[in-house]
Amino acid sequence: VSPALGNGPEFDRIRAIIETLGERASGLGDDCALVPLGNEYLAISTDLSIENVHFKRAWLDPQEIGWRAAAGALSDLAAVGAEPIGVLASLALPVHSPVPDFAAVMDGIGAAAAAVGAKVIGGDLASSPNWTVDVTVIGRSQHPVRRSGAQAGDGLWVTGYLGGARAGLSAFTSGQSPAGAVRDSFVHPVPRMAAGRWLAQHGARAMIDLSDGLAGDARHLAAASEVAIVIEMERIPLGPGVQDSALAMGEDPFTFAARGGEDYELLLALAPGFSSDQATEFEQAMNLPLTRIGTLSPGRGLTLTLAGRPISLGGFNHFT
Amino acid sequence: VSPALGNGPEFDRIRAIIETLGERASGLGDDCALVPLGNEYLAISTDLSIENVHFKRAWLDPQEIGWRAAAGALSDLAAVGAEPIGVLASLALPVHSPVPDFAAVMDGIGAAAAAVGAKVIGGDLASSPNWTVDVTVIGRSQHPVRRSGAQAGDGLWVTGYLGGARAGLSAFTSGQSPAGAVRDSFVHPVPRMAAGRWLAQHGARAMIDLSDGLAGDARHLAAASEVAIVIEMERIPLGPGVQDSALAMGEDPFTFAARGGEDYELLLALAPGFSSDQATEFEQAMNLPLTRIGTLSPGRGLTLTLAGRPISLGGFNHFT
Repeated sequence: VSPALGNGPEFDRIRAIIETLGERASGLGDDCALVPLGNEYLAISTDLSIENVHFKRAWLDPQEIGWRAAAGALSDLAAVGAEPIGVLASLALPVHSPVPDFAAVMDGIGAAAAAVGAKVIGGDLASSPNWTVDVTVIGRSQHPVRRSGAQAGDGLWVTGYLGGARAGLSAFTSGQSPAGAVRDSFVHPVPRMAAGRWLAQHGARAMIDLSDGLAGDARHLAAASEVAIVIEMERIPLGPGVQDSALAMGEDPFTFAARGGEDYELLLALAPGFSSDQATEFEQAMNLPLTRIGTLSPGRGLTLTLAGRPISLGGFNHFT
Repeated sequence: VSPALGNGPEFDRIRAIIETLGERASGLGDDCALVPLGNEYLAISTDLSIENVHFKRAWLDPQEIGWRAAAGALSDLAAVGAEPIGVLASLALPVHSPVPDFAAVMDGIGAAAAAVGAKVIGGDLASSPNWTVDVTVIGRSQHPVRRSGAQAGDGLWVTGYLGGARAGLSAFTSGQSPAGAVRDSFVHPVPRMAAGRWLAQHGARAMIDLSDGLAGDARHLAAASEVAIVIEMERIPLGPGVQDSALAMGEDPFTFAARGGEDYELLLALAPGFSSDQATEFEQAMNLPLTRIGTLSPGRGLTLTLAGRPISLGGFNHFT
């Protein structure tokens, strides 16, 4: 009963947990839990954000730590096309942390919630040596979009620009002080809540948010939908700083972007009839690019092509 | 707009957070978020459990860490009389923790969920120097019981036995190896889910679960309901090991029990008409004592009496 997940140590853990829980679990391995209630579904997701794992204190101020944690969790609701109901936040800061630190993290969480029309409705406080934020989001949807609905023949589309978060992260980890759009891509991701709802209402058959990186998340979508995916890497819309960061690391910019996690854009399958006029309508309504980057076909797995040749690369996970 | 909360550094933090969030928050400071949805309410709560704050690894095995974390969260649903829908669990263990450790913690969470008829529906994994478990629980109720509905003239009642968790904890912290009922009181708390629903259906006007300790939680209930509470300490039903632990610490057993946190029993207000026959009916149906320990009257605040004389004691919180 293991779900269709990609490879890597994080997914080995998830598979072991699913096996241990057996009948006591339901729907693990998706972005969101989807629980039928009345004539709709509750969508629920929880996202951990931990100092020195997901961020360093030197990079983000407390308000930004809160925003980033909440945005990542809200992105899971966006990926199913849900409307947010509320946000819960558990904070653990080092013993004797001043009250304003707790308030500033919650201020960032509150700002991210308010930006999508949700409220903070609960949480818990404790102490921990490393700053720890766990954000749980609850939403609702009559017709949630899952990872599993893609069909051969569909187009593979992505919102926004990719690789920007990795460019920002690379700058931080190499000791630079990124600014402007490069810093924002990592520090201030925007959950694509309205975009997710628009796409759910306009034919998205399967959708996932890009937290593990394009390559890893495309594999999840291919596995869950039991299709093959080909991504033409040159079509990837590159985020701010990606060209320069890739150059500095001697990496092709498109593979750099495809390996970058935490862009929190949406990756989705749309029927072949989805027109460029509809894409333009989306872009104008959302002020956000919508780019076709690949194709779904019968088969299994993910193929990435660059200049027509298949290439290989890995995903991103917190345990490597 | 600060809610009616007791004193202490944890509540100072909550008050600062509520002030910072302003309109971006709703209902903070209760056991559960209660969100109207259709003709009922969603009840949602999240509970952090962190190594060296809430437990030590030497005291609990991984399965017990999971059970205890989940039971504490589920207890918040019990306190509003909700029916559980699902459980989400975020786990962060030290880098390179073996897969079975993750699975064992989730096994304990799954056991606690299954014991109340709920499933594990989601979660997140990460790494952290201290074992960290954040459990979010979702339930539903058409008529949730809040902290705020108690009225002057009501009786104050409590389920089960108090002080046992503190007796177990005292044994652990003094280097002993508690066993049997004393160990179980701390290690294996039982969320009073069915009891909470029974009491909600039989006239509970206000209810809270005992996580901060009887004295602290009774203050919350008094403040939220805007009544005065008098607890006759001699009426407190004492948990296993409380007599001996209190004796060893030179403390009166009733004050020892009233100061002990994390018993996860229910404290509630019942109208004066609630009869001893009804209490017996509860006890037989639930196989659990239901004891009247005090009275609500016009006024404010909490008075504890022992042998007819007012006494003073503090609550329990994680930051002292």
